[in-house]
Amino acid sequence: MKDFLFGAAYYDEYMPYDRIDEDFRLLKEGGFNTVRIAESTWSTLEPSDGVFDFTHIDRMLDAARKYDIKVIVGTPTYAIPSWMAKEYPDILALSPSGKCVYGARQQNNLLNPDYLRFCERVIRKLISHVCDHPCVIGYQLDNETRSADDVSPETQNIFLDRIKKQYPDINEFNREFGLSYWSNSISSWDDFPDIRGTINGSLHAAYMRFLRDVVKEFLEWQAIMVNEYKKPGQFITHNFDFSWTTHSYGLHPLIDQAGTAKYMDITGIDVYHDSGAGLDGKEIAFGSDLARSLKKDNHIVLETQAQGNPGWLPYPGQLRLQAYSHVAGGAVGILYWNWHSIHNAIESYWKGILSHDLTPGKTYEELSSWIREFALNSDKLTPIKKHNSIAILVDNHSLTGLDEFPISDSLDYNYILRQIYDCLYEMNLECDLVRKPDDLEPYKILIVPALYSCNDGDIDKLRKYVQNGGHLFMTFKSCFSDDELKIYHDRQPHKMNDIMKAGYDMFTIPDEDTRITIGDTDSEVTGWMELLEADEENIWAYYRHPVWKKYAAVTHSSFGRGTVTYLGCHIDNDGLKALITRLAGIARKDIPTFSFPIIKRGGYNKDGNYITFYFNYSSDYVTFRYDGPSVHDLLNDKDIEDGQDISINPWDLVITVSQCESIC
Amino acid sequence: MKDFLFGAAYYDEYMPYDRIDEDFRLLKEGGFNTVRIAESTWSTLEPSDGVFDFTHIDRMLDAARKYDIKVIVGTPTYAIPSWMAKEYPDILALSPSGKCVYGARQQNNLLNPDYLRFCERVIRKLISHVCDHPCVIGYQLDNETRSADDVSPETQNIFLDRIKKQYPDINEFNREFGLSYWSNSISSWDDFPDIRGTINGSLHAAYMRFLRDVVKEFLEWQAIMVNEYKKPGQFITHNFDFSWTTHSYGLHPLIDQAGTAKYMDITGIDVYHDSGAGLDGKEIAFGSDLARSLKKDNHIVLETQAQGNPGWLPYPGQLRLQAYSHVAGGAVGILYWNWHSIHNAIESYWKGILSHDLTPGKTYEELSSWIREFALNSDKLTPIKKHNSIAILVDNHSLTGLDEFPISDSLDYNYILRQIYDCLYEMNLECDLVRKPDDLEPYKILIVPALYSCNDGDIDKLRKYVQNGGHLFMTFKSCFSDDELKIYHDRQPHKMNDIMKAGYDMFTIPDEDTRITIGDTDSEVTGWMELLEADEENIWAYYRHPVWKKYAAVTHSSFGRGTVTYLGCHIDNDGLKALITRLAGIARKDIPTFSFPIIKRGGYNKDGNYITFYFNYSSDYVTFRYDGPSVHDLLNDKDIEDGQDISINPWDLVITVSQCESIC
Amino acid sequence: MKDFLFGAAYYDEYMPYDRIDEDFRLLKEGGFNTVRIAESTWSTLEPSDGVFDFTHIDRMLDAARKYDIKVIVGTPTYAIPSWMAKEYPDILALSPSGKCVYGARQQNNLLNPDYLRFCERVIRKLISHVCDHPCVIGYQLDNETRSADDVSPETQNIFLDRIKKQYPDINEFNREFGLSYWSNSISSWDDFPDIRGTINGSLHAAYMRFLRDVVKEFLEWQAIMVNEYKKPGQFITHNFDFSWTTHSYGLHPLIDQAGTAKYMDITGIDVYHDSGAGLDGKEIAFGSDLARSLKKDNHIVLETQAQGNPGWLPYPGQLRLQAYSHVAGGAVGILYWNWHSIHNAIESYWKGILSHDLTPGKTYEELSSWIREFALNSDKLTPIKKHNSIAILVDNHSLTGLDEFPISDSLDYNYILRQIYDCLYEMNLECDLVRKPDDLEPYKILIVPALYSCNDGDIDKLRKYVQNGGHLFMTFKSCFSDDELKIYHDRQPHKMNDIMKAGYDMFTIPDEDTRITIGDTDSEVTGWMELLEADEENIWAYYRHPVWKKYAAVTHSSFGRGTVTYLGCHIDNDGLKALITRLAGIARKDIPTFSFPIIKRGGYNKDGNYITFYFNYSSDYVTFRYDGPSVHDLLNDKDIEDGQDISINPWDLVITVSQCESIC
Repeated sequence: MKDFLFGAAYYDEYMPYDRIDEDFRLLKEGGFNTVRIAESTWSTLEPSDGVFDFTHIDRMLDAARKYDIKVIVGTPTYAIPSWMAKEYPDILALSPSGKCVYGARQQNNLLNPDYLRFCERVIRKLISHVCDHPCVIGYQLDNETRSADDVSPETQNIFLDRIKKQYPDINEFNREFGLSYWSNSISSWDDFPDIRGTINGSLHAAYMRFLRDVVKEFLEWQAIMVNEYKKPGQFITHNFDFSWTTHSYGLHPLIDQAGTAKYMDITGIDVYHDSGAGLDGKEIAFGSDLARSLKKDNHIVLETQAQGNPGWLPYPGQLRLQAYSHVAGGAVGILYWNWHSIHNAIESYWKGILSHDLTPGKTYEELSSWIREFALNSDKLTPIKKHNSIAILVDNHSLTGLDEFPISDSLDYNYILRQIYDCLYEMNLECDLVRKPDDLEPYKILIVPALYSCNDGDIDKLRKYVQNGGHLFMTFKSCFSDDELKIYHDRQPHKMNDIMKAGYDMFTIPDEDTRITIGDTDSEVTGWMELLEADEENIWAYYRHPVWKKYAAVTHSSFGRGTVTYLGCHIDNDGLKALITRLAGIARKDIPTFSFPIIKRGGYNKDGNYITFYFNYSSDYVTFRYDGPSVHDLLNDKDIEDGQDISINPWDLVITVSQCESIC
Repeated sequence: MKDFLFGAAYYDEYMPYDRIDEDFRLLKEGGFNTVRIAESTWSTLEPSDGVFDFTHIDRMLDAARKYDIKVIVGTPTYAIPSWMAKEYPDILALSPSGKCVYGARQQNNLLNPDYLRFCERVIRKLISHVCDHPCVIGYQLDNETRSADDVSPETQNIFLDRIKKQYPDINEFNREFGLSYWSNSISSWDDFPDIRGTINGSLHAAYMRFLRDVVKEFLEWQAIMVNEYKKPGQFITHNFDFSWTTHSYGLHPLIDQAGTAKYMDITGIDVYHDSGAGLDGKEIAFGSDLARSLKKDNHIVLETQAQGNPGWLPYPGQLRLQAYSHVAGGAVGILYWNWHSIHNAIESYWKGILSHDLTPGKTYEELSSWIREFALNSDKLTPIKKHNSIAILVDNHSLTGLDEFPISDSLDYNYILRQIYDCLYEMNLECDLVRKPDDLEPYKILIVPALYSCNDGDIDKLRKYVQNGGHLFMTFKSCFSDDELKIYHDRQPHKMNDIMKAGYDMFTIPDEDTRITIGDTDSEVTGWMELLEADEENIWAYYRHPVWKKYAAVTHSSFGRGTVTYLGCHIDNDGLKALITRLAGIARKDIPTFSFPIIKRGGYNKDGNYITFYFNYSSDYVTFRYDGPSVHDLLNDKDIEDGQDISINPWDLVITVSQCESIC
Repeated sequence: MKDFLFGAAYYDEYMPYDRIDEDFRLLKEGGFNTVRIAESTWSTLEPSDGVFDFTHIDRMLDAARKYDIKVIVGTPTYAIPSWMAKEYPDILALSPSGKCVYGARQQNNLLNPDYLRFCERVIRKLISHVCDHPCVIGYQLDNETRSADDVSPETQNIFLDRIKKQYPDINEFNREFGLSYWSNSISSWDDFPDIRGTINGSLHAAYMRFLRDVVKEFLEWQAIMVNEYKKPGQFITHNFDFSWTTHSYGLHPLIDQAGTAKYMDITGIDVYHDSGAGLDGKEIAFGSDLARSLKKDNHIVLETQAQGNPGWLPYPGQLRLQAYSHVAGGAVGILYWNWHSIHNAIESYWKGILSHDLTPGKTYEELSSWIREFALNSDKLTPIKKHNSIAILVDNHSLTGLDEFPISDSLDYNYILRQIYDCLYEMNLECDLVRKPDDLEPYKILIVPALYSCNDGDIDKLRKYVQNGGHLFMTFKSCFSDDELKIYHDRQPHKMNDIMKAGYDMFTIPDEDTRITIGDTDSEVTGWMELLEADEENIWAYYRHPVWKKYAAVTHSSFGRGTVTYLGCHIDNDGLKALITRLAGIARKDIPTFSFPIIKRGGYNKDGNYITFYFNYSSDYVTFRYDGPSVHDLLNDKDIEDGQDISINPWDLVITVSQCESIC
């Protein structure tokens, strides 16, 4: 297990008493080989302006050396010290709801020159201090970076400068954004209004995109700086997080992760999810797939829960299941947040590997036990590489589009995306997440959820994908508006309706009990419906509705060597799965006969063998029939033959090795 | 169809490309004869301070002339340009939740001198520019005017000046408003407190009344100005709106519409309502009746939905049903909002006659088809005049009273008003809405919901109404407080309990399962109950309650030649209808045998014939028996005889012509 | 009835016309002997800066003398006049949600020097003016005092000064509060952050404790001042209120009542509660028990509802039942809020003894009737003294602890406290409320709910209590953190797990359908569960849960001569009562055979007899069997023998006199 990173965030700074030797001894004994340090502790690194104190850093590096532990050092810039906010109040962002008051993290205006000056100084001091240490393997730039929604005049001025460059002609700007509505047009840039008050969703969306650019540029700037110090063998990473409900959920609205990942050597993510009875592996899978999409490569899980919040205390066996799930998703390292539970402040109930009593308990024991088991096979199991034939096209600006122009209280972008993702997951159909610039050709099936914003060039790319034999599955609200969210003024979906052989100019909210039928599946339509007009031969489903029954809900047509399937409404999961099944048939993509809670994920190992993980995400004992060529059951060291039953204990798994992928 | 106005709001300014000729051609071909322009587009009319550009106005007037379309020109003052807010930040109101940020409409302080100066200049420039154009038939002053709840020191000072005038003696002011409570009394006007903090509901209500006065005075001022330019045959109107839930609902709290309508030549309203399965015609009827009440005359619908928001997409036939409903309510014009759907900004999903694709679709077709049908009979069908024998007394200050001194979360003034109105509507009893200064004598039945504020003079008027033979039906919380919402300190209801032969000094919230019986109808009491004491002979219903059963819920007494019926509690619709039925019997007012979803509305046409509209507001085929003298079925051109069945298709109607009103 | 106070708050200032003689005559005739005046009327006492006008005071004192009514005079400092806020805006607090705007009460910064100067002047003027009047029997200091959550820089600076004194070493401060988390540590006191932004729950809790200290010091300061004027026989009191839901509920978070009561001669409280169908006596009992706990003595009810808000209109008989309930709790006086109903301002629907019509109605009649009945036996019935053998330990800082570190949306401190209190109440087990410094030895059973914060000294006291024979019943989240809410870093519960023979380092949120069994009772576990590890012999209940079934929910162990029972989770009332029953068996504490709605409360009168009140808090006629020595039924003047049935009418009661307490 030479390369797999296994460890935790470690904070000597937070310990209630000196126990660093004890902790690193426990780490070593438990099989952990890596700690992540320093990303949250600017106030102890630089207790007052220009006064640096690397005592804690040195203690941790010394202990790491003593116990042979690898170290990832974070730049501490996401949480500023109090003295900085006192000296330079402008560093704290002006958020739409008012001036930030010092205390929480990620409150700083990323464009503030004083802040950037302080960042540069502490980064150069810290990284130059640690870069030659033999335990240091890499650097994390900032942490879960997002703008603080800053709307200070200074930030708005920079936004305006970029708008001016993009639109040298102010009248074109007025026109493209439709500013004359409610008398908002301007004849001089001096009249550019405060973004906080705008009723123009296109303009506000442009500001959100600008804030995403600011994040990207900030991390690029840090990357260039740290690269000056980086030694051979060391890497640069960032801890990308996701949008959040009560856990990691979907695409993050405030950062362009694909654009930002270019400046990293390896992608890092943090993944938090339900556990206990609620553990289903979805966020782990989604996080893995999203991580892989950023650099088309393997990733490190820089943060995930040990015990997490009280509702997430893992059942016995779940920590092991979770760790294998990350590996199956392509992780080449897992770092828990965090080593120990915190005794004060805000996250005391977000517990680490050690509970508040700081003694090795069940969590420590299960993780140690897992890494011992994993080490036996780690060369076979990691890194996993995937060659998926299904992709989902995701888009930050379309997410913003549905935020600015909401179609319903519940149908936001991430809901729509995750419904599709989760259905594929439950059906055991693995997928990639792609973005507009990515190469679409490798995929048999391309799923496009609610691509609210899509310019003519990208539409053309979708058309070519189909023409060349791809199977495009697109949902409602796609190709609806241009780059500035200006709704197209021709037939919808814009420049797709010809090849779809279907289009619409009316949409509405379904009445109660509006339904459609897909094959044998009766599915409820809720939240949104577009009244598609098409020839009967291109209609897969009509609306079952007293009045709108002559309109289509789902259409399907051929174009070139491929097909376009369009879903004009929001339907339930059963209906969506029936649609995917029908589509998979057309695309000749096999679907396993078993489904969630039995989850199959896998990929090729470095020897070119195909590793399949069969997870049981339930409290029940499950059995399914294996169909395919003989494979080797790695953990039980026995062969499994075609037609044989495979049984899995609750929250347990089976791992098989074979020459190539089998569908079940 | 010489006089009936049919058209839409039109905004050349908002079009994504030049299509004005195409649009006016489509208008003309579709049978539309009117556009409403300019009320929302100050920023294009005056792109910078003092620079006027009437290009769009002229283009629209030119097109109107070419295609013979009438034009209503709006003063653009409800949505200010950005340059104005930049130059004069004080124009933006200080609302109770903070300083308005530029962007939305109706954010301006209507008393700000700079704002008024800009208003005057643009109004004079615009109206003088257009007043001689042959297509211009009238002017709309501002739009849906309301104060922005301004609480700036300047506005509060003006309020204080008026209070001082009203109360030369500061001690009388303290006394009347009960300011000594919680130590709020003042001995000097300099100590007059910021209205934002007051805990005195009477004082805050006085401020709300003052803000209504400000709106009235602002529109009066515009009317005087526009009258200087108005040519013979042209009219002045205002687009009055209603209180809003998710659609038009009740009396507007922020404008005294009856007082303001005096300055208009004709009343305009805007009406938005559920459609599709939710279409029931209530808001159209209520809007019509409220509009008629303002000047006791016919009105124009200046705005109503074409497609409206996504949930309102009309079922086929509903646009026709809605248009006839407006006509039956007395409308002499219907203008849709708006011609085309918007491609950016905030109301992109509030769709017009044309969808975003700007081609004539189902909405255009159904409206065109309706106007062709309507034109055949428009001389017979419009204007409709009504002589109702039932009236509901409505009162802005009582509305505020229940807001300031709420009796329950759900029982606000408009809820109480609309429950009564909607029951009458469903029973096919048409009514007028009257206000305190109006003549009450014409009405057999006067219904007074929650007249929280009523001074002795107005109470005397109610007494005289009864004495002279009227049947007064008054609900809980009436005659409870004086002009400043000071609760009367004698027996309730103040100065009515003698003629009611009933009174109370205790009230409470009903326990679950409190009920009353009206005739055969058992009705639930919820939210509020007054414990009425009366002699048994004057009691129509006792409370069915384990403890309060000796108190009356409904009393009835004779006084002079009339009667007073008092409802001391909130009951369900069935109970309310039973009460109205009993009362109608006493007042010898006939009630049709059929009810909602079959709705009968009508009135006299200019030939003195009585036009009856029978609407079917449902997806079912309905049949009812016609009783009355022979009438002519206008649309089917056949006679209907006494006792004959009339059937109506879903969302369809029958119109009959006869010599006089028949009750069914 | 020499000493029992019976009356109302009286405000000549609020009367709509001069009726003071009428009012005092009605008071006298109705049997009322006391009024409480002046605490709310600073603006009439001092209409402008330094100008005093005691006209109303003198009118009330004159009338009191004429009709022989006692008077309690309040210092008017909780509601400042408008002129003061105009002159000294800093007197108004800066609350976390922004600067207070003048109007409401209790908005003043209690530390503001100008405010204190004004307080001193008005207090000295007023008290010196009235102190020699023969009717004046006592003084109320301020009213329901709490800080306005002031976070002004001045107040924060005083807080900082105290922190500095407490922590001379800034590093120890950083450590104890765990400030290095998220980079919040400071190296200079100049960098001390604004408390509004802190993410450190310990620091914010310290601020809340500081604000409680400010309240205590403010009232101490008033007490010292008023004591200068106080004549022999006069008393000083304060009107303590409780935390509030829609009525009085639990421990007040913003005042240390036990600490403050030291400066009072007698405790006053205000108690508001549901009435009508919702009357259950719980808040009256809880209020009484909490009042008694403050000075270990009897108390006056300074405010309770006459009619109260509309939902609380008392059923006939309930005012009598409520009054006896207060007496049974140890009240030596009951003053209603207020004499008359208010005609304007904010509390018009919070009605007094007289309704708005100012005539004596049902409320006046029932209260008069009660006092006549009570006077016959008042010498026997008051003051009641209690010697309870059960106590609940309550703690303000633990309340704050659960606010700062919430464990669930619903399980806050007062919920947990009241669940226990209410179960005891329903079981007819009377209890005292004690605080950490109190003597615990007298109690057979000590119940400790969620004592989140407990230092080693206090834990030692609990251990000794058990060692000496006490039966300690402690719930989840007890002994979890130290004085600054720093979570203990050893096994939980800190320094109790050894004598409990049980401990835990894991906790979680129960899955649905997690249950435990206590005796025959099956109880649902919701919201919180700690996974207790213990030997089987010490386990009273395991969790019924698919995974956590090997962990204990309830443990019980002996230590010294006593026992410790620990409840590790939140269970339903049935389960809690089963636990208390089992525990009472061990502690040899008898439990009555009847329970709510039959409530038994009582105590010793001054003759040493035991007075028992049997209340029927229901609309049903109830009967129960009396077991015990012969007792005398006071109201019915007859004896009740062992084994005899006692029946009580709805909302009625029976009072018995005997030599000693009998359990039923």
